[in-house]
Amino acid sequence: MAPPLSKILETFDNQYPDRDYTIEIVCPEFTSVCPKTGQPDFGTLTINYVPEKKCVELKSLKLYLLQFRNEGIFYENVTNRILDDLVAALHPRRMTLTAAFNARGGITTTVTATHKAEVHGK
Amino acid sequence: MAPPLSKILETFDNQYPDRDYTIEIVCPEFTSVCPKTGQPDFGTLTINYVPEKKCVELKSLKLYLLQFRNEGIFYENVTNRILDDLVAALHPRRMTLTAAFNARGGITTTVTATHKAEVHGK
Amino acid sequence: MAPPLSKILETFDNQYPDRDYTIEIVCPEFTSVCPKTGQPDFGTLTINYVPEKKCVELKSLKLYLLQFRNEGIFYENVTNRILDDLVAALHPRRMTLTAAFNARGGITTTVTATHKAEVHGK
Amino acid sequence: MAPPLSKILETFDNQYPDRDYTIEIVCPEFTSVCPKTGQPDFGTLTINYVPEKKCVELKSLKLYLLQFRNEGIFYENVTNRILDDLVAALHPRRMTLTAAFNARGGITTTVTATHKAEVHGK
Amino acid sequence: MAPPLSKILETFDNQYPDRDYTIEIVCPEFTSVCPKTGQPDFGTLTINYVPEKKCVELKSLKLYLLQFRNEGIFYENVTNRILDDLVAALHPRRMTLTAAFNARGGITTTVTATHKAEVHGK
Amino acid sequence: MAPPLSKILETFDNQYPDRDYTIEIVCPEFTSVCPKTGQPDFGTLTINYVPEKKCVELKSLKLYLLQFRNEGIFYENVTNRILDDLVAALHPRRMTLTAAFNARGGITTTVTATHKAEVHGK
Amino acid sequence: MAPPLSKILETFDNQYPDRDYTIEIVCPEFTSVCPKTGQPDFGTLTINYVPEKKCVELKSLKLYLLQFRNEGIFYENVTNRILDDLVAALHPRRMTLTAAFNARGGITTTVTATHKAEVHGK
Amino acid sequence: MAPPLSKILETFDNQYPDRDYTIEIVCPEFTSVCPKTGQPDFGTLTINYVPEKKCVELKSLKLYLLQFRNEGIFYENVTNRILDDLVAALHPRRMTLTAAFNARGGITTTVTATHKAEVHGK
Amino acid sequence: MAPPLSKILETFDNQYPDRDYTIEIVCPEFTSVCPKTGQPDFGTLTINYVPEKKCVELKSLKLYLLQFRNEGIFYENVTNRILDDLVAALHPRRMTLTAAFNARGGITTTVTATHKAEVHGK
Amino acid sequence: MAPPLSKILETFDNQYPDRDYTIEIVCPEFTSVCPKTGQPDFGTLTINYVPEKKCVELKSLKLYLLQFRNEGIFYENVTNRILDDLVAALHPRRMTLTAAFNARGGITTTVTATHKAEVHGK
Repeated sequence: MAPPLSKILETFDNQYPDRDYTIEIVCPEFTSVCPKTGQPDFGTLTINYVPEKKCVELKSLKLYLLQFRNEGIFYENVTNRILDDLVAALHPRRMTLTAAFNARGGITTTVTATHKAEVHGK
Repeated sequence: MAPPLSKILETFDNQYPDRDYTIEIVCPEFTSVCPKTGQPDFGTLTINYVPEKKCVELKSLKLYLLQFRNEGIFYENVTNRILDDLVAALHPRRMTLTAAFNARGGITTTVTATHKAEVHGK
Repeated sequence: MAPPLSKILETFDNQYPDRDYTIEIVCPEFTSVCPKTGQPDFGTLTINYVPEKKCVELKSLKLYLLQFRNEGIFYENVTNRILDDLVAALHPRRMTLTAAFNARGGITTTVTATHKAEVHGK
Repeated sequence: MAPPLSKILETFDNQYPDRDYTIEIVCPEFTSVCPKTGQPDFGTLTINYVPEKKCVELKSLKLYLLQFRNEGIFYENVTNRILDDLVAALHPRRMTLTAAFNARGGITTTVTATHKAEVHGK
Repeated sequence: MAPPLSKILETFDNQYPDRDYTIEIVCPEFTSVCPKTGQPDFGTLTINYVPEKKCVELKSLKLYLLQFRNEGIFYENVTNRILDDLVAALHPRRMTLTAAFNARGGITTTVTATHKAEVHGK
Repeated sequence: MAPPLSKILETFDNQYPDRDYTIEIVCPEFTSVCPKTGQPDFGTLTINYVPEKKCVELKSLKLYLLQFRNEGIFYENVTNRILDDLVAALHPRRMTLTAAFNARGGITTTVTATHKAEVHGK
Repeated sequence: MAPPLSKILETFDNQYPDRDYTIEIVCPEFTSVCPKTGQPDFGTLTINYVPEKKCVELKSLKLYLLQFRNEGIFYENVTNRILDDLVAALHPRRMTLTAAFNARGGITTTVTATHKAEVHGK
Repeated sequence: MAPPLSKILETFDNQYPDRDYTIEIVCPEFTSVCPKTGQPDFGTLTINYVPEKKCVELKSLKLYLLQFRNEGIFYENVTNRILDDLVAALHPRRMTLTAAFNARGGITTTVTATHKAEVHGK
Repeated sequence: MAPPLSKILETFDNQYPDRDYTIEIVCPEFTSVCPKTGQPDFGTLTINYVPEKKCVELKSLKLYLLQFRNEGIFYENVTNRILDDLVAALHPRRMTLTAAFNARGGITTTVTATHKAEVHGK
Repeated sequence: MAPPLSKILETFDNQYPDRDYTIEIVCPEFTSVCPKTGQPDFGTLTINYVPEKKCVELKSLKLYLLQFRNEGIFYENVTNRILDDLVAALHPRRMTLTAAFNARGGITTTVTATHKAEVHGK
């Protein structure tokens, strides 16, 4: 998967930067492809973050996630990859990404990763 | 949206100011308008606060929220705006506002903001 | 509402005073009257306490709550009033009262108040 | 409410007219205004129909329902009115409209009306 | 319980008498008194009817049901009594009343009664 | 188990014999003993009947069911036995008894039996 | 899978042969093996029958189903096979077997088969 | 979408053709593309059929449905199209296809179509 | 209730004493008798403990709980009594007993008690 | 059960070792055999871990768990055994294993064990 993926993400200015508040975005229609079997994977992404100067624009987020529709990528990597891309675009005070994938072979997998800005206290 | 909005809010005296207790108000019928598309947004507001001297009168709260019915305002801003208006009217010891908006384009957004009074300890 | 209300509450001796244990009582059939409109309010009371020397007898608790059936009293006040009456009768180590009232005008209200005994450490 | 309301409804040709099949559309974000109190009502509309030559276009349906947002109209009438408008636009073989309105004063109301085409047998 | 109870019920004209449609009203806050023990009973009433010339006005229905708040009456009788009163006031084409009472002594009771107009076919 | 069991059942007169209406009684706390293992069985009994001249009095029903608490009896037999006893006491127009027993060895059993009065048409 | 499987099934006499009543047995812990992949399948069996002269003894039923634990057999065949074995052992008036298998590859399968005795009317 | 799509479907012989039994297959991970907006649609397909001589092989069904992943097709058409393809491959005695699509613009759509074989009685 | 009750409890050796791990046992079929009314009480016991040298054997636990079936004992006392008996038999590092009793008179009671071993740190 | 069991477990390299992130794997189809009765046990395993250098490959995990299908082993031991095997294969920073077994004799058991790496701080 090529690097320009995160360029699709658009942001808008946080109008309330003086307050630590939380934005949670749930995307139950995420789908990518298993790199081993070539079969599609399905899951629900939950993005939870405290914005610094930027908030993510939802339509661009949808288009960004759509880029994974036909990409082959493992559960653990897609979770960390999306977190990295969102952190690069938003520089949030804190962000947690949870990716809950549908059962395969009777087994369900959920991956959760968190980023914290180093400078911002609390 | 003009400033007189918060003037609609009425309060009554907290009869138990010596005790830190919590009032949670859930409004599942909140609706405003998306400033980009002009389409209505729907969501559930949850107001959770510890009163100081004032409690919010419920009928006036309903009328206040009704003012947003035909206003165009973004998710993040409507949440912080309502929190600011309620804090200005009630000066609560602590207040958290959670606004859970219905799915648009398969994506659900919840915004949570908290205010704490500076003087009051604990 | 006259003061003799709490006289209805009966207690029995806590047989295990050496242990901090919790008793939770849920009363989903609480009803009082709105002092403004004269219409009945309905709600669920949850009493959660650590007994000191006394436990509340359930039949007397039911009769006590029944006294509010035709009384006009606001949500915030009924919650604090019942907590005060129970604390006066039981002197519990800790007690939390949660009153979750049914929706009125599309708005639901829950009031939660806590009492802690001053002497008893933990 | 003026008659041009139903003109907003657009249709597209049913590609499988030889088969009796069912289309169910659920709109959980319907809102109108109570003509008595001026307060907003909220409800879920469920449209279930067997198309003849026409199917309803979903975006135009959404715009049509949006016309009721600031109209004052009773539960029973809004249900029959929408059914009449949809029947006039689609001439379906069979259509049932269910309108489930949120609780007011602790009372919930659901209105269900059905239209059957006279000519089409089964 | 005296006969003037049903006089409280108000009606309004059915605007769509040519169509057989259904109105379902759910009242989850019904309460009366057990004539044996004097203790309050609680239950949910569901009224489902096809109107002829009259529909029941909801506020008057609420006031009517409120009359039972302090009346002593058995489950089976209260159900049939309310059905009789509503039929007398509305002369509906068909009406079913379901009264689901909360558990007493670990036993839950639901009573269901139906009235059909004799003249009206189908 | 001796025959006098059903003598415990008390009845009261059906005040609305001209109407076919349904009474459903759910008893989720039924318990008897497995005649093979001597271990207790637990289940939920649902009694659904149309009364003729008699309705069952709930307190006596509870006492009647309590008689099985320490009796050894198989699922299929307890269901038919209770149905027979209730039919003998009430002579209902129609009665269905459903006994849903808790899982044993990972297997759940529900027995359902119906009695219809021979004379009463419908 | 060899024929002696059904020999494990034991029965006991139906004590109420004069009445058509229903016995429903739910076995949520059924497991067999996919003949193609060698991987285990899991599912819930629901057996619903009206007994003639015989009822199935539950412990023997459990042992019978246990025989499939390491057998390779397709969904459609295991359902019809078990139905055939139970019919041969019980000669019920009517029996329906539903086998709901857990998802494989994101796809869930439920097979339902019914047997009716030819002689017995209704 | 080109005609060879249905060629992917593989079948196996029904081993119990003498019995009318039902196979229900639920596919909660169906996705296609909206031909108007180019955005992906998501939904749950439920296939319910009585086999004649052929049953559908599940892995081939999964591959067949996968062909729609990047195809633009309307809700109503995709439902009827898949039903036609499955009927052509299996010639079932009866088949119902239900396609429940996720909400778009706050509106949910479910399409249900049924095919019955002309020759087979009952 | 006589002291030999706890003698029924059997234990087996904890094979992993070096690790603090938790065993939770849920018994939804607990029943005793109300000492006041003589009527049976029903509830769900949840035992959660960290074993030291001993684990409780489940069949003996079941027999132990069965001893309360016909004993008259109050909610608060039965909870503390069972905790004491289990602690005496197992000497666990930590044990919490939760007893959730079914509603009586529309009121539900849950009692929770905890024991911690004094020596064992964490 | 012989030691080579854990040799089946395969791993792949953690691509994001610099970040503490969590992988949760749920296996609702675990089955082993009770060593006392020879009857199968069923349960749901939940594995929650923070990877160090290795992640567990899911297909090998499934094959590993399949080894217990016909093994006789107690609840407490199977939980600790699987945790030990996974820790030996993955050397995770933290791992918790929860095994929730289905009810036997009306009693449900859940065992939870945790391993923490000694070196890795947090």
